[in-house]
Amino acid sequence: MNDTVKYVLDESRIPKHWYNIVADLPAPPAAVLHPGTRQPIGPGDLAPLFPMELILQEVSQEREIEIPGPVRAVYRQWRPSPLFRARRLEQALGTPARIYYKYEGVSPAGSHKPNTAVAQAFYNKEAGVKRLTTETGAGQWGSSLAFAGQVFGLEVKVFMVRVSYDQKPYRRALMETYGARCVPSPSPETRSGQAILAQRADHPGSLGIAISEAVEVAATDDDAKYALGSVLNHVLMHQTIIGQEAIAQLEMADDYPDVVIGCAGGGSNFAGIAFPFIGAKLRGGPGVRVIAVEPAACPTLTRGRYAYDFGDTGHLTPLVKMHTLGSGFTPPGFHAGGLRYHGMAPLVSHCLDLGLMEARAYRQNEVFAAGVQFARAEGIVPAPEANHAVKCAIDEALACKSEGRARTILFNLSGHGHFDMQAYTDFFSGSLQDQAYDEEELETALAALPVAT
Amino acid sequence: MNDTVKYVLDESRIPKHWYNIVADLPAPPAAVLHPGTRQPIGPGDLAPLFPMELILQEVSQEREIEIPGPVRAVYRQWRPSPLFRARRLEQALGTPARIYYKYEGVSPAGSHKPNTAVAQAFYNKEAGVKRLTTETGAGQWGSSLAFAGQVFGLEVKVFMVRVSYDQKPYRRALMETYGARCVPSPSPETRSGQAILAQRADHPGSLGIAISEAVEVAATDDDAKYALGSVLNHVLMHQTIIGQEAIAQLEMADDYPDVVIGCAGGGSNFAGIAFPFIGAKLRGGPGVRVIAVEPAACPTLTRGRYAYDFGDTGHLTPLVKMHTLGSGFTPPGFHAGGLRYHGMAPLVSHCLDLGLMEARAYRQNEVFAAGVQFARAEGIVPAPEANHAVKCAIDEALACKSEGRARTILFNLSGHGHFDMQAYTDFFSGSLQDQAYDEEELETALAALPVAT
Repeated sequence: MNDTVKYVLDESRIPKHWYNIVADLPAPPAAVLHPGTRQPIGPGDLAPLFPMELILQEVSQEREIEIPGPVRAVYRQWRPSPLFRARRLEQALGTPARIYYKYEGVSPAGSHKPNTAVAQAFYNKEAGVKRLTTETGAGQWGSSLAFAGQVFGLEVKVFMVRVSYDQKPYRRALMETYGARCVPSPSPETRSGQAILAQRADHPGSLGIAISEAVEVAATDDDAKYALGSVLNHVLMHQTIIGQEAIAQLEMADDYPDVVIGCAGGGSNFAGIAFPFIGAKLRGGPGVRVIAVEPAACPTLTRGRYAYDFGDTGHLTPLVKMHTLGSGFTPPGFHAGGLRYHGMAPLVSHCLDLGLMEARAYRQNEVFAAGVQFARAEGIVPAPEANHAVKCAIDEALACKSEGRARTILFNLSGHGHFDMQAYTDFFSGSLQDQAYDEEELETALAALPVAT
Repeated sequence: MNDTVKYVLDESRIPKHWYNIVADLPAPPAAVLHPGTRQPIGPGDLAPLFPMELILQEVSQEREIEIPGPVRAVYRQWRPSPLFRARRLEQALGTPARIYYKYEGVSPAGSHKPNTAVAQAFYNKEAGVKRLTTETGAGQWGSSLAFAGQVFGLEVKVFMVRVSYDQKPYRRALMETYGARCVPSPSPETRSGQAILAQRADHPGSLGIAISEAVEVAATDDDAKYALGSVLNHVLMHQTIIGQEAIAQLEMADDYPDVVIGCAGGGSNFAGIAFPFIGAKLRGGPGVRVIAVEPAACPTLTRGRYAYDFGDTGHLTPLVKMHTLGSGFTPPGFHAGGLRYHGMAPLVSHCLDLGLMEARAYRQNEVFAAGVQFARAEGIVPAPEANHAVKCAIDEALACKSEGRARTILFNLSGHGHFDMQAYTDFFSGSLQDQAYDEEELETALAALPVAT
């Protein structure tokens, strides 16, 4: 009854291809528009920011893209990641459901983010790039790119949202341990940052601002490119190794999910676990419910508009069609820093629009209560972001209990919470922020959406 | 060249027995003495503190003790732990040495400690015990026992050295997330604690004091027993699965170590990796150098006396023959909290006395410099304790380089440093404490050793 059931794949089973859901979708995703001309952009428009191999992946319609040998070689450090059956949690819940979780916290940086960081660092190195710039909120992405940059010998500069920079010194220490330079954003190092600081010297920053700064540096330095940790097609595609492995591991268990769950901020860990299952269904495979879970304080999928918007606050990025709260929306402060983005990956937004998935929003306190219940049963302390998926999995398992049905539930435990223990301390002391979004702020931000198409 | 080489054993290869080095030693370890009578104790003397199965393991002379099925079932969550070849570190050092590390940070609590915590919780549960008490310094052990107690349905109370309790709120949060109660020591909850507080109300505490408190509670509560995270024979024996797995994994690599390295505080992770290799040598197997690494600030093996001493400050424990700095010795504050104990496991002390191993001491700053170099090469941020082993492995690898010899080096990476990032922050800012011990304090503490035998 205390048995752990762990499904481990041999390293030869690390996927050899990333999966591109675009090849299987019943309708193509909307075009990406130039921020100036508002006309569809071509690969050349993205060349100042990304190496051409990644741009070609971004616009690819091929179902499979081969993973380069050197990337798979680095993956071997932690992949295939384990799939666990959560028997002790099932027992604690008294549910007939079978709950499985794919655990991505085994990576060096502690989350799924290195899956794409390593790939991006590799392609940039191949293209002769010397320096990478990026932004980070909670720090999961920044530390992952710092790790990947170190592996391939690239300098990494991370613009970290100032409020996180101040509140999470240990994430910063991790990035510095990996050799990256970490700059609080807004910073005086860019024109975007200078403009914000001129308005408000103690501005707490936002992901949108940090993106503007990182993009600006990459665009103005010939030896530098920009790396993004979520949202873009190629980033989501790199994460699909999660779902591909899970399918193989569930085969070992002779099982297949009725429900697949992931938390969604920009959408990458969600897409990583979900897209291979959605794709299998689109190709005639088994039916499956797919649920993206977001915080009630930043409810992009459940309350946002499906419309063209900028990816950043400074409006330097192309316009993409996505579920968005408006690039001017600032969510209330809460701990799941990885879920604070105003938009959602265009491909995830498109899947929701096509009816291929569902979305659900939860409050912080119920999410942390679920995380603590999970930690006590399974021994792993989830990241605040991952607690959203945990909460949904528990709710689905309890629904099974009340219906007396034994469904199979799979969720992505996208990372551990070792660098987020302040949030747990706040939860135990009752001081965790639990508000939803401000309705007036949302209306204002949505009203300011750029009108395009 | 960026290849990670990971040796993974199938879960059927989790060892089926713990290895007891006593069966192979050329001379038996010294008797344990009653603190009052100073006569050898029998199993019954330990019965107030430990369940009989663990007492029998403590005095066993059998070479192998079978691991119960329910313990192996819990081990399956993270065992067999991976063995890595540190190719990127080798490359960074330019050494002809082959460096392997066994990584125990994959356990739920992030170190080797759950290997024995799970076993101890199991035997206590079988014996009808309801509550476990223990002490913790850095918090690695306390969080491991909290996890294990939760798995088997036992209440856990942890006396945490006050200075760590105040400095490491996130370790405390981890214990509480696992459902344990964490009390700063010295506390008003015990007579030992009251006596210390009467002398000094703001006493920072020590492991010796916290042991006294935990032992007192266990001895006076019929439903409670005491659990120790290191030092004792049975605790070291539970860790030997580390070395057993490493031998099997090195066979996969068609290699065998010339040097085996572990950091040593109480001695358990060191014994875990080293004893199976020492035992193999004693039974006619290949020769191997074995090195225990300790901090210069608490140099038990390199500067302590091999003599009878108490395990705790309150002198409630039996007298054991070990390398000791004196139970009154207080090391200067430094971050490797797991290496602050005044004594050393009697079996490790015995092995050093028999010439079966070596010992070496390092200062904090050189140890952290090695840890950062390791993190940049291998992507894993080691615990401060483990950095001592890393430093020694790097020194041995550099010796290979200067001698032009390709030796095989194996070390135990006993845990990750995710809860110890303040130490890295201090290291980067140049404010890490780096002093050695106080010679006068050591002389005083050694002069106060109880004279026995």
